[in-house]
Amino acid sequence: MVPHLTTALNGPLLTLEKRMLASMPEIEHWFRQQWLDYATPFYASVDLRNAGFKLAPVDTNLFPGGFNNLNPDFLPLGIQAAMSAVEKICPDARRLLLIPENHTRNTYYLRNVAALTNILRQAGMDVRVGSISPEITAPVDLDLQNGHALHMEPVQRKGNRLVLDGFDSCAVLLNNDLSGGIPDILQNLEQTLIPPLHAGWATRRKSQHFAAYNRVAEAFAALIGIDEWLINPYFSTCGEIDFHAREGEDCLAANVEAMLMRIRAKYKEYGVEQEPFVIVKADAGTYGMGIMTVKSPDDVRDLNRKQRNKMSVVKEGLQVSEVIIQEGVYTFESIEDAVAEPVVYMMDHFVVGGFYRVHTGRGIDENLNAPGMQFVPLAFEQPCSMPDCGGAPDSLPNRFYAYGVVARLALLAAAIELQEQDPENQH
Amino acid sequence: MVPHLTTALNGPLLTLEKRMLASMPEIEHWFRQQWLDYATPFYASVDLRNAGFKLAPVDTNLFPGGFNNLNPDFLPLGIQAAMSAVEKICPDARRLLLIPENHTRNTYYLRNVAALTNILRQAGMDVRVGSISPEITAPVDLDLQNGHALHMEPVQRKGNRLVLDGFDSCAVLLNNDLSGGIPDILQNLEQTLIPPLHAGWATRRKSQHFAAYNRVAEAFAALIGIDEWLINPYFSTCGEIDFHAREGEDCLAANVEAMLMRIRAKYKEYGVEQEPFVIVKADAGTYGMGIMTVKSPDDVRDLNRKQRNKMSVVKEGLQVSEVIIQEGVYTFESIEDAVAEPVVYMMDHFVVGGFYRVHTGRGIDENLNAPGMQFVPLAFEQPCSMPDCGGAPDSLPNRFYAYGVVARLALLAAAIELQEQDPENQH
Repeated sequence: MVPHLTTALNGPLLTLEKRMLASMPEIEHWFRQQWLDYATPFYASVDLRNAGFKLAPVDTNLFPGGFNNLNPDFLPLGIQAAMSAVEKICPDARRLLLIPENHTRNTYYLRNVAALTNILRQAGMDVRVGSISPEITAPVDLDLQNGHALHMEPVQRKGNRLVLDGFDSCAVLLNNDLSGGIPDILQNLEQTLIPPLHAGWATRRKSQHFAAYNRVAEAFAALIGIDEWLINPYFSTCGEIDFHAREGEDCLAANVEAMLMRIRAKYKEYGVEQEPFVIVKADAGTYGMGIMTVKSPDDVRDLNRKQRNKMSVVKEGLQVSEVIIQEGVYTFESIEDAVAEPVVYMMDHFVVGGFYRVHTGRGIDENLNAPGMQFVPLAFEQPCSMPDCGGAPDSLPNRFYAYGVVARLALLAAAIELQEQDPENQH
Repeated sequence: MVPHLTTALNGPLLTLEKRMLASMPEIEHWFRQQWLDYATPFYASVDLRNAGFKLAPVDTNLFPGGFNNLNPDFLPLGIQAAMSAVEKICPDARRLLLIPENHTRNTYYLRNVAALTNILRQAGMDVRVGSISPEITAPVDLDLQNGHALHMEPVQRKGNRLVLDGFDSCAVLLNNDLSGGIPDILQNLEQTLIPPLHAGWATRRKSQHFAAYNRVAEAFAALIGIDEWLINPYFSTCGEIDFHAREGEDCLAANVEAMLMRIRAKYKEYGVEQEPFVIVKADAGTYGMGIMTVKSPDDVRDLNRKQRNKMSVVKEGLQVSEVIIQEGVYTFESIEDAVAEPVVYMMDHFVVGGFYRVHTGRGIDENLNAPGMQFVPLAFEQPCSMPDCGGAPDSLPNRFYAYGVVARLALLAAAIELQEQDPENQH
């Protein structure tokens, strides 16, 4: 069962997919060149939106959850890619300490940790899960409510190393996005941290990612001869904003207005009849908190207290002071009247699978990764690496190939962003 | 449907598989270290023999055919591994000229070329098939008798480059093992040849491969604490032999006798009751021509004219002058009373699949890759990368993991052999 594209406006996207298929050798060659210049992140997931006329990344997660939602048939792909990732980033490592998020009561998240651990073990790593949550004070088996349990131990700091009882690893894999800041226990470690600390939301900014994506999308669009806009959502930023004190609202309203105008012009160029919208969200942070769908500058002027509260706090109480204003991309994929949004998973620079977030209670212009969201994961039925060059551009293998290409563009942007934001490169 | 191990003598093999499973992090770590030191071949297949008490490689093919026999479900694994192989060996390449064997009337072989081409195309290469056979004088579509055709063009030499009409590639992939010597058209090319010419049977020797394998097996056996013999067949060589002139027979007989004694001692040590045997085969060449099963020194003294003819000529008329005497390994896998021999396929250093050669008309002590052999390929039902650490050591995923490990040991030996035999390293 696969979502249908429910739009008549699929002309430009068909063109885009056709162009990608025809340019496949150039595209793969180009990616190979890029990966000679930029170190690939260990892993990542990318949220895509498919508007029929436009296919674009809207979020790139460098601490991906949701590995439990991938199609188990593609597990060997993940194992092989994990082997490549380990080879590149920590070839000397035999053991891997995996540090998950602190929300140890979220069974879905814990299943993700179990699935990720399984992939890494099958890739030949000796993996143990160590929590930095104050709630984990002794080894515990957490029930995954699927007949399995996840063994978790409290992390101990010894000098500048993180260890578990009888387990000292030369590499530490973070599956914790540091939204709450970098805890002391992770500071000044002598072990290799994967991804590095500056990939966490304590320092990372979406606007830096999308600034890098601008350059990636521009080069890629030139490579295959397309309008960059077809794969790239506009974005802008507004410096410091205090929603409670209503500081920065004018800047926000002006940016929203300017962006709506730019989108309107593009919609006119491509004959798109939908109403343009923008998304205002925290420049740091994840989990879909602090996100607004905005269709008019007035929408950001007349926020009520509840909306202001919502925008002021993201995960783990991090204050929103910087926001990113991003072009909204409609999602015109749906399944049984529910809106569907593809999420693509990568390890090293390989696409290892993906799934659809399927949500019945949300509109086509709303963020599907939102608090309280009850999405149904729908694993991709096919890998993203097998286009059917004889098939129609919108046939399933070809749509998935296009997803894989755009997700890898976002991955490349993340690689550039991480290199540029690396404190060691900032002198 | 999977072959059964039909032997009571599986104690040592179970021990071996158990040891491999328990040592998986050490094994994968060790392989990572090796691949830092040795360049992995682009692709290879390894013939294994599973005697229940012993699991060993008996032949390593650096120009593998048979890609058409792999399970199509694992195609994504091949594509991903091909991407890695291209990245490492020819990252600049966009186009790839594939040069197949000259036997353009063997439909099974042509299907292999088509399957290999498909994998490389899906990995993003612009691939065309160019033949060096004098029979191919114009572009032709060869019927694969499965509803598909393979487009083949005559290769042209322009200066020091091989080209097709409108197609000049920076890399040339050989699927031709050069058994008939290195043709002039392949000499002194400025393009990158993959694998290099010295991987071809014009210069390659099985004894060099197994000499390298001796060192690999010794190091690996020490790593996981097993008797090296459990994964390594004895071998020796005898210099020049002329079967027609009956020169070198004494040396051969003496070597056979000595090896049978060594095997007998090991069989005694492990309580194996089968009769030891050795295989005498051409030190260069493939295709299972020029192969004898020998159970007594007398077997090589009293060759009749027909046997001498058979041993004197291998593929494309290459004269046998050097032979390798190799410990015979029983194959105790069978399916519906037919003997089965696993063949494992690798691209870069990843196992991408495999199949069983299943042969009803052959004995458990005979070579299954023989002229006129009507084998039935039985694709592996599972990849070799997913051991079930909770399962029994002889469960299917675990048997396949052991196959993948031993095949990769042979691949590593090939990498060492190619590095040592590289003319550029021989000053």
